[in-house]
Amino acid sequence: MANLQRLNNMELLNTIQRPILVLDRNKCVANIQHMVQKAQKHRLRFRPHFKTHQSQTIGLWFKEQGVRQITVSSLSMADYFAQSGWEDITVAFPVNLREMERINQLASQITLNLLVEDVEVLKQLALKLRADVGLFIKIDTGYHRTGIPANDFKQVDILCSEMAKHSQLRFKGFLTHAGNTYSAQSVEEILHIHQQNLLQLSRLKQSFKKRFAELLISIGDTPSCSLADDFTSVDEIRPGNFVFYDVMQWQLGSCRLDQIAVALACPVVAKHPERHELVLYGGAIHFSKDFITLDDGTKCFGLMVEWEEHGWKIPEQLWPVVSLSQEHGIVKVDQSVMKRIAVGDVVGILPIHSCLTAHAMKGYLTTDGQWLDHFNAIDLPLNEM
Amino acid sequence: MANLQRLNNMELLNTIQRPILVLDRNKCVANIQHMVQKAQKHRLRFRPHFKTHQSQTIGLWFKEQGVRQITVSSLSMADYFAQSGWEDITVAFPVNLREMERINQLASQITLNLLVEDVEVLKQLALKLRADVGLFIKIDTGYHRTGIPANDFKQVDILCSEMAKHSQLRFKGFLTHAGNTYSAQSVEEILHIHQQNLLQLSRLKQSFKKRFAELLISIGDTPSCSLADDFTSVDEIRPGNFVFYDVMQWQLGSCRLDQIAVALACPVVAKHPERHELVLYGGAIHFSKDFITLDDGTKCFGLMVEWEEHGWKIPEQLWPVVSLSQEHGIVKVDQSVMKRIAVGDVVGILPIHSCLTAHAMKGYLTTDGQWLDHFNAIDLPLNEM
Repeated sequence: MANLQRLNNMELLNTIQRPILVLDRNKCVANIQHMVQKAQKHRLRFRPHFKTHQSQTIGLWFKEQGVRQITVSSLSMADYFAQSGWEDITVAFPVNLREMERINQLASQITLNLLVEDVEVLKQLALKLRADVGLFIKIDTGYHRTGIPANDFKQVDILCSEMAKHSQLRFKGFLTHAGNTYSAQSVEEILHIHQQNLLQLSRLKQSFKKRFAELLISIGDTPSCSLADDFTSVDEIRPGNFVFYDVMQWQLGSCRLDQIAVALACPVVAKHPERHELVLYGGAIHFSKDFITLDDGTKCFGLMVEWEEHGWKIPEQLWPVVSLSQEHGIVKVDQSVMKRIAVGDVVGILPIHSCLTAHAMKGYLTTDGQWLDHFNAIDLPLNEM
Repeated sequence: MANLQRLNNMELLNTIQRPILVLDRNKCVANIQHMVQKAQKHRLRFRPHFKTHQSQTIGLWFKEQGVRQITVSSLSMADYFAQSGWEDITVAFPVNLREMERINQLASQITLNLLVEDVEVLKQLALKLRADVGLFIKIDTGYHRTGIPANDFKQVDILCSEMAKHSQLRFKGFLTHAGNTYSAQSVEEILHIHQQNLLQLSRLKQSFKKRFAELLISIGDTPSCSLADDFTSVDEIRPGNFVFYDVMQWQLGSCRLDQIAVALACPVVAKHPERHELVLYGGAIHFSKDFITLDDGTKCFGLMVEWEEHGWKIPEQLWPVVSLSQEHGIVKVDQSVMKRIAVGDVVGILPIHSCLTAHAMKGYLTTDGQWLDHFNAIDLPLNEM
């Protein structure tokens, strides 16, 4: 515990016994403000995705910036945010027919928007619905996860015609998630994917605007929303990850390392100077297991930072987490770091994928000492537990 | 929902709305019995690792087979099992000095064994301890995650001598985890690693047995414990994963696919016949993100199974989950499967790494309709939440 003195600047760290996700509120609020301003500049509706933070408290920070409409990735999450007063929620996940009861519950309470891509699902949804819902047609502009290909006007037309038959279904527009930006090798490639995205959506909009004057084009990925400066024909953006950013976004070029707003505080439990390694209490169950590959070929599961008075500082050199098992993390450091850090100290690790780390950790400790909630429902289908 | 008829055989599936981890009790109990018998055959103490299932109920199934000593990977987990009556627990993780309060609490209630590898930690532990603990020295036989190299007799000697100074520290023996078997390319390679492991531990035992007649050699990994038939100089085995096994263990050769005891039940939310893909509600937050690489180079995040009367059946062909995002999973199937399965159906996915999937899912539904607990503490360092 040799370094506790150093940690006194941030007394909370002294209380940490086990891995805890630390949140820098200033960075987080700055990330929110930056995206709010970008949306305003481009006259875009801002409907942030809340799947990254999943926190009612952080939700309030968005509300303070004027945000009134949000995106979530499950009905369970929609329910969590509806409970804290959000009244206009898009569930950016294909309609799950097995959750009709929750859909009906939510649709009767709030403005609920759902995603469709399949006419059979649409028919069943219409049959079972007991309240109005808004519907976006999920469009695939190249990610190839879900959605109707952007050039398949015929299929889009079939869906629109089916929707028109049911008074409870209100067609809202076309929604896409260009998740293919995540495999881009450069900022130029991200911007290229974004431009291709706009081109396809613009054609779709032109074609269907005659029938649906109010239709919206909604796009979502954090790399495009962070980097692009052209949003022609876009009406709404739904980025989520930008609220914290993470090492993956830094590698993609979407953010700087000092914009990352969360770090996992991990006790150091062993040192192996002969192979330049620190062993941390902090593993796959805390971080989840996404990794990036660094320029030198190293697999990297996180980047180490050390604490300073009001948070953490970004080191000049990268100290990567090179492996994770269930509870252990291994960081590669140099001799000077090895000397400076003692077993019993707590270090910070910037996560590779903040959405998954936040989901695993189920709560935040802010650098100013406040505990923040994270959605933690265990969705059981029966009432027996 | 075209296929609900087929699911009537297992009526519980009809109630499933969201991803649920389904457990086949018969397979699980058979896995437990098999390992109990193996330990008996080789006259080994069986101290199963409970980090895979983390369930008090499944713990009882071990108790029914005569197991009285267990292994866990954190003090929090030790606490969870101490609460359900386990009185002899090894925490197979380096001593975390920041959790002295919990160490003292547990050590005063149960027989608690800890792991050490650092003399400074040992000194601090001795200083702060208020009850007896057993200590294993963590030995590194080639995995290079933690531990003292097996040939570093000098360092082992320093630790033993330090322990001897403190009456509350009882030296128990040498503990290793040959996690390097997980990167083996064949059963032969696993057995080779195991033999190297035995050789190193045997030398260590010979050398220190003169001073410590009672010392134990404890080994742990599921591949070695499943496949080996030579346990010369070993006294105790601590496998954990075998309780469920998983697709990774199947690829390693440790088990058959029909021994895997858990499958994640996932609603099908979309179909893309043109690219042979089903889209599932079931993603990285449910499975975690480990993957294996199949022989044809495909990244595989799980294998699809379909339900039958009392559980699931293993298909003749492999239907791999080829990608996972936060809530989505994509499975590649052929045309006949594509025709058979409808949007709204529920399929099963055998997980790549059952420990992480069970940890993410926090509970089990057995194929005979019982809900089982999973450790779910959110360990907060302060009392403010």
